[in-house]
Amino acid sequence: MSESTGSAAERIEWTTHCMPVLASVTDELRDAKPFSGARIGICLHVEPKTAVLLSSLKDLGAEVVTTGNFGTTQDDVVAELNARGHRVLGSRTDNAATHLQNKRQVLATQPHLLLDNGAELYSELEHAADSPLIGGTEETTSGADRLRAAPPLGIPILVINDSPLKRIFENEIGVGQSVLSTFQRVTNSTPAGKEVVVAGYGWCGRGIASAFRAAGARVSILEVDPVTAFDAAVHGSAVRAREDAIALGQIFITATGDRNVLPVEAIAQMRPGALLANAGHFGVEIDLVGLTNATRQSVVSPSIERFTFPTGHSGFVLAGGEMLNLAGGAGNPIEPMDMGLTLQLLCLKEVWQNSSQLASGAQPVPESINRVLAERMLAEMAPHLRAPREGSEPHS
Amino acid sequence: MSESTGSAAERIEWTTHCMPVLASVTDELRDAKPFSGARIGICLHVEPKTAVLLSSLKDLGAEVVTTGNFGTTQDDVVAELNARGHRVLGSRTDNAATHLQNKRQVLATQPHLLLDNGAELYSELEHAADSPLIGGTEETTSGADRLRAAPPLGIPILVINDSPLKRIFENEIGVGQSVLSTFQRVTNSTPAGKEVVVAGYGWCGRGIASAFRAAGARVSILEVDPVTAFDAAVHGSAVRAREDAIALGQIFITATGDRNVLPVEAIAQMRPGALLANAGHFGVEIDLVGLTNATRQSVVSPSIERFTFPTGHSGFVLAGGEMLNLAGGAGNPIEPMDMGLTLQLLCLKEVWQNSSQLASGAQPVPESINRVLAERMLAEMAPHLRAPREGSEPHS
Amino acid sequence: MSESTGSAAERIEWTTHCMPVLASVTDELRDAKPFSGARIGICLHVEPKTAVLLSSLKDLGAEVVTTGNFGTTQDDVVAELNARGHRVLGSRTDNAATHLQNKRQVLATQPHLLLDNGAELYSELEHAADSPLIGGTEETTSGADRLRAAPPLGIPILVINDSPLKRIFENEIGVGQSVLSTFQRVTNSTPAGKEVVVAGYGWCGRGIASAFRAAGARVSILEVDPVTAFDAAVHGSAVRAREDAIALGQIFITATGDRNVLPVEAIAQMRPGALLANAGHFGVEIDLVGLTNATRQSVVSPSIERFTFPTGHSGFVLAGGEMLNLAGGAGNPIEPMDMGLTLQLLCLKEVWQNSSQLASGAQPVPESINRVLAERMLAEMAPHLRAPREGSEPHS
Amino acid sequence: MSESTGSAAERIEWTTHCMPVLASVTDELRDAKPFSGARIGICLHVEPKTAVLLSSLKDLGAEVVTTGNFGTTQDDVVAELNARGHRVLGSRTDNAATHLQNKRQVLATQPHLLLDNGAELYSELEHAADSPLIGGTEETTSGADRLRAAPPLGIPILVINDSPLKRIFENEIGVGQSVLSTFQRVTNSTPAGKEVVVAGYGWCGRGIASAFRAAGARVSILEVDPVTAFDAAVHGSAVRAREDAIALGQIFITATGDRNVLPVEAIAQMRPGALLANAGHFGVEIDLVGLTNATRQSVVSPSIERFTFPTGHSGFVLAGGEMLNLAGGAGNPIEPMDMGLTLQLLCLKEVWQNSSQLASGAQPVPESINRVLAERMLAEMAPHLRAPREGSEPHS
Repeated sequence: MSESTGSAAERIEWTTHCMPVLASVTDELRDAKPFSGARIGICLHVEPKTAVLLSSLKDLGAEVVTTGNFGTTQDDVVAELNARGHRVLGSRTDNAATHLQNKRQVLATQPHLLLDNGAELYSELEHAADSPLIGGTEETTSGADRLRAAPPLGIPILVINDSPLKRIFENEIGVGQSVLSTFQRVTNSTPAGKEVVVAGYGWCGRGIASAFRAAGARVSILEVDPVTAFDAAVHGSAVRAREDAIALGQIFITATGDRNVLPVEAIAQMRPGALLANAGHFGVEIDLVGLTNATRQSVVSPSIERFTFPTGHSGFVLAGGEMLNLAGGAGNPIEPMDMGLTLQLLCLKEVWQNSSQLASGAQPVPESINRVLAERMLAEMAPHLRAPREGSEPHS
Repeated sequence: MSESTGSAAERIEWTTHCMPVLASVTDELRDAKPFSGARIGICLHVEPKTAVLLSSLKDLGAEVVTTGNFGTTQDDVVAELNARGHRVLGSRTDNAATHLQNKRQVLATQPHLLLDNGAELYSELEHAADSPLIGGTEETTSGADRLRAAPPLGIPILVINDSPLKRIFENEIGVGQSVLSTFQRVTNSTPAGKEVVVAGYGWCGRGIASAFRAAGARVSILEVDPVTAFDAAVHGSAVRAREDAIALGQIFITATGDRNVLPVEAIAQMRPGALLANAGHFGVEIDLVGLTNATRQSVVSPSIERFTFPTGHSGFVLAGGEMLNLAGGAGNPIEPMDMGLTLQLLCLKEVWQNSSQLASGAQPVPESINRVLAERMLAEMAPHLRAPREGSEPHS
Repeated sequence: MSESTGSAAERIEWTTHCMPVLASVTDELRDAKPFSGARIGICLHVEPKTAVLLSSLKDLGAEVVTTGNFGTTQDDVVAELNARGHRVLGSRTDNAATHLQNKRQVLATQPHLLLDNGAELYSELEHAADSPLIGGTEETTSGADRLRAAPPLGIPILVINDSPLKRIFENEIGVGQSVLSTFQRVTNSTPAGKEVVVAGYGWCGRGIASAFRAAGARVSILEVDPVTAFDAAVHGSAVRAREDAIALGQIFITATGDRNVLPVEAIAQMRPGALLANAGHFGVEIDLVGLTNATRQSVVSPSIERFTFPTGHSGFVLAGGEMLNLAGGAGNPIEPMDMGLTLQLLCLKEVWQNSSQLASGAQPVPESINRVLAERMLAEMAPHLRAPREGSEPHS
Repeated sequence: MSESTGSAAERIEWTTHCMPVLASVTDELRDAKPFSGARIGICLHVEPKTAVLLSSLKDLGAEVVTTGNFGTTQDDVVAELNARGHRVLGSRTDNAATHLQNKRQVLATQPHLLLDNGAELYSELEHAADSPLIGGTEETTSGADRLRAAPPLGIPILVINDSPLKRIFENEIGVGQSVLSTFQRVTNSTPAGKEVVVAGYGWCGRGIASAFRAAGARVSILEVDPVTAFDAAVHGSAVRAREDAIALGQIFITATGDRNVLPVEAIAQMRPGALLANAGHFGVEIDLVGLTNATRQSVVSPSIERFTFPTGHSGFVLAGGEMLNLAGGAGNPIEPMDMGLTLQLLCLKEVWQNSSQLASGAQPVPESINRVLAERMLAEMAPHLRAPREGSEPHS
């Protein structure tokens, strides 16, 4: 449910109803309290879905302290959680300094486990040796890349986004569909019959391309990896030279994970009225600094800003160039999040119970966890088709 | 843009920007003022897109008085229009009596032309002979059916929804996509992997089926016309016996134009947690009266209500059973509405200028108007592909 | 089954097995012999599927004489039918004069009913008043257009192709799929990642566009009707100016029903190696005369001919520019033909039994026949989903 | 082009024309003769596309001896190649003993490199140490699995099918599309509106599911890996319990790589008239032995066999249960084969030139080769969109 259509408590109630997988796993483990004695530090988007995970972790015995990611925190959800006895920091309007302070406050609680989104907490760790930290999880691929580029922390970190389940359901289906529906919601426009350029054909990009194609758009792809570009081409998208795509597009969506994918010089070459949106994790793919310097801006609506070059040439940026489906909508749909957050729970449990048997460093989710979870998802999604198999229980 | 993301004035500004076809036609006719001397009575959903049409009609010389349809009026748009010198009646919370009064007030102004949506005004006409009324338009097929079933009014009424352009772009593409995106917005849920039942496989129904299939759902169809049902079947939907579909579905969407398509007895046979939504023009397809009598209701969010039978069996109704994309979202996307409202303008002009040459009764949009408009839409939608042809100007 | 994979008798046996609807209708009417006393003259593609219809008509009491359409007759099927006591004329290699002679021979038998394909027989009728002819059927839209343009014959002619069932299942699904699969068979090539131009976006054209899009092609449409072109555009095809499409395409497929859609001057502007195929009823859409005069031809395979302009620029014509799915393959799939030929049978019966109650001239299939047949098709296609309804029997 | 539509020489000529990537790479390397001194032993399907590779290898200096895979050899292509000075063994009708002899004859030539398809040659190697063999390639995943399960050979073997390019273009697109088109060709039937069961949702399976869904079928998936099954479910296929799928399907296609996926006991539970086909590499997925014992068989056409249980219950096996697209059609489309065979050439060159730098054992294609080839494919497939980049040349 969108943030505009109900109180934080109502939204959390509906969301809880829509997360049957996390609910059933939590119920099974409730008596065993597998997180007894564990202190967990968390940095992730704070909204109703993650609120349900925080409650599950607490119900299973963990002591949890959480801060939101930068710019996406839903303040009323923070208030509601704190009113329920959670400890959640941060606000949508936090500036960089306050956000850093929040992260350091989380780390100051000396957590045994971290659940991180974008390696925001891990990158603030300086003395892991002195801390009781035994490992944790990282939600994003960008975060995992950051971890792999940094000096090793010497602890196991399970990378949630590397799970094939996440790539399929959250990145391709979830992001693909919610970027389209948020685009439609923010602009009240249909892409049917229009030229859409998707920059990046990773799992998010292919989900976005697929959703927009199904909605009647002609999709062009910008992609630096020729193998991935070839994949796009034989599935019906046009893989174009950069300058051709820039000149052609009416709607641009970035999903590369890179910085400055659409520099201001390219934006100046676009057709009048081009719409620019970002679906990547960080709001750095559209050259907002360049735009601010080179154009005049005016607010069209809370999620649409018009920029106008001195020549009179103008276009629009959606959701301030932040991740469109989160900043302009309600984020990923609940079901992939039900899956993704159950994956977080199962992985944190694995690290807490078996950290000594795990290699150190960023690593994929163990295959056994993926299999257990996939069976559960199938059973919940289509119970008439497939009953859960024996052996799919997440034993405490 | 959604009603939640900007003031009425902002929304009208963005919408105006997104309606280039109506704008260009209005510009061309501005000097000729083809509606000079015409008083137009209107009943339609009052929201930013229709607001732009009201301004165009006024700019082209018409005197206009408008009331909203029942239950969908955006009050701040009414206020904004009245502040700009329009005359618009009605409120979202009007009861049946007040709504009737509004319609009679429109008719009391003695209009020459009517623009109607659901034959709400025409069905209140009793003495057309005494009035200066020379004809008009009717937006919906349901309204046209109502007109054809009633005693003849003796005036030409062009049925907008019978235009192939409307069926293609507004019903199939517009309704199909906006029902899906509003479903996603209201529930924050994905239909991927779920059983969706669409009742009615007219143009709206096939658009809905297509959109949900593209989003990963397995779609079943309930359809009484065997030819239409066959069409659904060979395009990949499952045409099921009614009782099988009722027992199977997880999400139900009605788009039949009929009453009581999902009676309470059927709803009682559904799986627990079934979601019910209506995409038909009138909020009568789900048996809300039956549900009210047989179940206990509770509000989950402004657009989601839970019903619970005495047995404990429960499910959810979205947007109060009103037309989902309007009541729970921002209605059809702008582009089909740009087209549909330009069609309204061109048809009203045709009736005003050539009523004596038109047959009386409900009738299709003249083919020449469809062709002119299609060329314009192609040119605006993809100017790099197809320039407007000579002869496609809407001469005054 | 393809003509290359079995004897005529084997192919007819398999085809009979695959035509359950015609079989069940024939069985029900077998005792009543509704065609007793009727002499039926027929001109249609002679291949295993039509062979099954000829047997049904004979089983139901008719006296039948048949000639093939020009250039598509399967000689071994003719031989097999004649060996079984049918009377079938014509050969694949007939020249125009022989073909005309065959048609006149059919008419010379003084038939009461005609079943025609392309108005080939009707256009040879000169003295219908002197004949016992009371009416008949016409398979194609092109044939119906020809009938409507010619002096009226004063008899009812039910136009099979105007049935919504035919448009859906034979033109869109059947032609669309078989043009793609025949293209793949003839060229052993995939359209994935290529530019395909479809000329004509009628029911065949949209089926072809849809099939090639699903196979990974980027599809452009050439279409003179702006309303139809608009339909293509919002469903994801690129509606291009003629010269742009000519310059862009790698594969061209004509399905307009018009003559000389791809004149030699346009072909000379195409990219080297362009593939040209026709899916329209008559082999006149590609300018073969122009090509013969302007280029050198060489045979690459029985279904692929290379043409080379004096400049060295060359390309390929598939299946000699004749209807690709028939000339290069096995024609439409059996199921749509099962439906279409059952429709022929039911319509001939209607004319034979009720000709006096039918208006004269080319006219649509009566809706009651469409409904009965649609119920039957649904029941045969997915018997587990939908049992035949009462009232769907084709009473004799 | 199908084997039925031209002589071996004609088919090889057309195929050569359709393999521009292999041609351009061969041209570039022609002077350098990178295979000078190399003897290559080959076992693969002998048909026009592989014939073009054999010619390329010979042109680049290699001495080549080839045998066909079991049951798929096109005899006229063998004759044509031998007439052109190649050395090719085998015949379509070889029995197991003769086939074994052929393979041993290839190995007896003491090759330096092997190109194998199904590890047929590698599994006959017993004294690799005594041979001059330095490495080679294996086409299939099944073959690679076999290699990994067997005692190590101590030489590098590049597994072509593990290349992402192969998975995308040959397995998903190529097999998916050609299984559908061959199904249509062999049966002259459309899957529209029917229940299709695909066993196995690997890359081939998902391509098949996607192609049949696009053709209007409702697709169910049998898949033992829950993660893969989940992927199928959220992309719109029904993941069913085995017994439900068996009872429901009208068309069954196996693509698992496993043995006895459809045992005779399951086949006996299917609906009457069910069609069974295999798309896996080996003809062992349908229980043909069980069927032979339990049923009476009759030939319907060269590619369709009917089986009848003593109860009278009957169904059909297509193409004798061998790989449908090869045995009943012309195999994969040319373009993926152009890519796959160029990959073979580039990998054989890599092993020949750099074997000492490669690890021993079955291993993926080096990423640099994938990238070079992807750029070439994009450039050949859509030269107007993307020119080949510098650095994409396959330097000798």
